[in-house]
Amino acid sequence: MGAEQLVLAVSTVVVALRPHPETGRLTLWLPLVRRIREPYRGMWALPGEPLRPEDDLATSARRTLERTTGLAPHYLEQLYAFGAVDRSPAGSGEDRVVSVVYWAIIRADEDARAIDGENVEWFVADEAPHLAFDHDTVLAYALARLRAKMGYSAIAHAFLTDEFTLAELRQVYEAVLQRPLDPANFRRQVLASKRVVPTGRHLSGTAHRPPALYRLAVPIPSADPARVVAAGHPEQEELT
Amino acid sequence: MGAEQLVLAVSTVVVALRPHPETGRLTLWLPLVRRIREPYRGMWALPGEPLRPEDDLATSARRTLERTTGLAPHYLEQLYAFGAVDRSPAGSGEDRVVSVVYWAIIRADEDARAIDGENVEWFVADEAPHLAFDHDTVLAYALARLRAKMGYSAIAHAFLTDEFTLAELRQVYEAVLQRPLDPANFRRQVLASKRVVPTGRHLSGTAHRPPALYRLAVPIPSADPARVVAAGHPEQEELT
Repeated sequence: MGAEQLVLAVSTVVVALRPHPETGRLTLWLPLVRRIREPYRGMWALPGEPLRPEDDLATSARRTLERTTGLAPHYLEQLYAFGAVDRSPAGSGEDRVVSVVYWAIIRADEDARAIDGENVEWFVADEAPHLAFDHDTVLAYALARLRAKMGYSAIAHAFLTDEFTLAELRQVYEAVLQRPLDPANFRRQVLASKRVVPTGRHLSGTAHRPPALYRLAVPIPSADPARVVAAGHPEQEELT
Repeated sequence: MGAEQLVLAVSTVVVALRPHPETGRLTLWLPLVRRIREPYRGMWALPGEPLRPEDDLATSARRTLERTTGLAPHYLEQLYAFGAVDRSPAGSGEDRVVSVVYWAIIRADEDARAIDGENVEWFVADEAPHLAFDHDTVLAYALARLRAKMGYSAIAHAFLTDEFTLAELRQVYEAVLQRPLDPANFRRQVLASKRVVPTGRHLSGTAHRPPALYRLAVPIPSADPARVVAAGHPEQEELT
C-alpha cells in the first residue's frame, strides 16, 4: 500500500417537491450538509458517509436518508459512481475518495425532519450554493437524469401517493421539468400510455364535479439489479 | 483499519454481435477471463482489475477493454456499482471487493484480438458458463439493461458503423432482443422516430435495386456525467 488510502463513500441526492419561496410554484428541493472539517470546511455538500465494512451500498444510502430526513426510502436508486483522480484537492493530504451516489425521492405526504439537526438545510435544487468536491457536477447530473427519466419511465409517481388526480400528476411533471404543460394534451398522453388506471373513486371535499382518482397500472419497476434480472426487461418498450 | 481491506475493482462487460455457432444467426458474444487464482480458481469471470491510484474509473475500464480485445472504445458506459457485503466467499480471508462495472460495445467492423492471449475466451452471452463471484448477476443485469435501452435510446447504433441500411439496423435489434421484427413495421417506426436520415448513397456491389444508406441524425448521447450536464437532457423525450 502507498501512503494514499482509497476511501469508498456513499452519498445520496434526496429530492422532494415543495413550493418555491418566491413564486409559490412547486419545485425540487434537496437537503445539504454543511462541512465541519477540511477540506471545504464551511461549504455545503451532499449528505453521505464512508462505506462501513458491514454495509451494502444501499444500506449506507438508506442510513444517510434516515439521518438527513428521518424517513425510510420509498424510492431509492443508484445513480452513478464518481471516481475522478482529482476529486479531493491536490496536496491536501486527503485520501482518494470514490463516491457511489444514490438518489432518493420523498413523497408529497412525507414530512422530512433531520435527525442530526443543525448541519442539515434544505435548498431549492436549481438554486443550490456552490458545493464542496465535485458535488456541483453530481447534483447537476442527478437533476439531468431525473428530468430525462421523466420522459420514458414512471418515476414521476415516486413523488405521489398511491392515488392521485391527473392534475396532481401533471403538477409533478411541471415542477420537475420546470415548464407548463397543456392539461388536455397531458391528459390524452397519459391515458394513451396506459400507465395509469382509474380507481373508480373521486377526490372528496371539493367542488360539485370532483376529479377522478387514478393509480399506477403496474408499480414503478425497481432499478435494483437482482430485481431487474428477476423481472425480465421492465423498461423495454414495445417494438413490433 | 480492521484486518479486512476494501478493494475497489473495475470490471467491463464487452459485447459484440457475431453469428451463433449453431443457428448462424447474429447474437451477443462477450469475452471472459479464466481465473488463475483463488477464490474461484479455474472459473470464468468478467475481465477487470483493481483500480490503480493514478486511474479514473473509465481509464481502468478502457485498459481492460484494450487488454481483452486490443481495441479502444467507441462506446463505453458505466453500468452499476456492485457492493454486496458477501460478494467474496465468507471465511476465504479475501478482501471485500466493490466493483464498478462498465459496458463496452464493439462495432461490426472491429476485430477483437486479446492481448493477454490464452486466458481470454469468447462466449455466446446468453449461454455463458456459471461465473465467479456475483458475475452471473452482473452479466444478467448488463444484458437486461442493454435490452431495455434498445427501446428508448439510440444504443443499437453502437454496434454499427456510421452508414448502415435499415435491414442492418433491424438485424441489430433482432440479435439483441432475440426475436424477429416485421421489416415493414420496423422501417415505418424507425423513419417515424426521425432518429436516422438518408445519406443519399446506396449499398454498392449488390443487386439492381441497392438498399439506401442511412446515418444517425444526432450522435448517440454520451452517458458521461460531465457531458450529460453540459448537453442538457439528451435522453428526454418530448412532452407537450
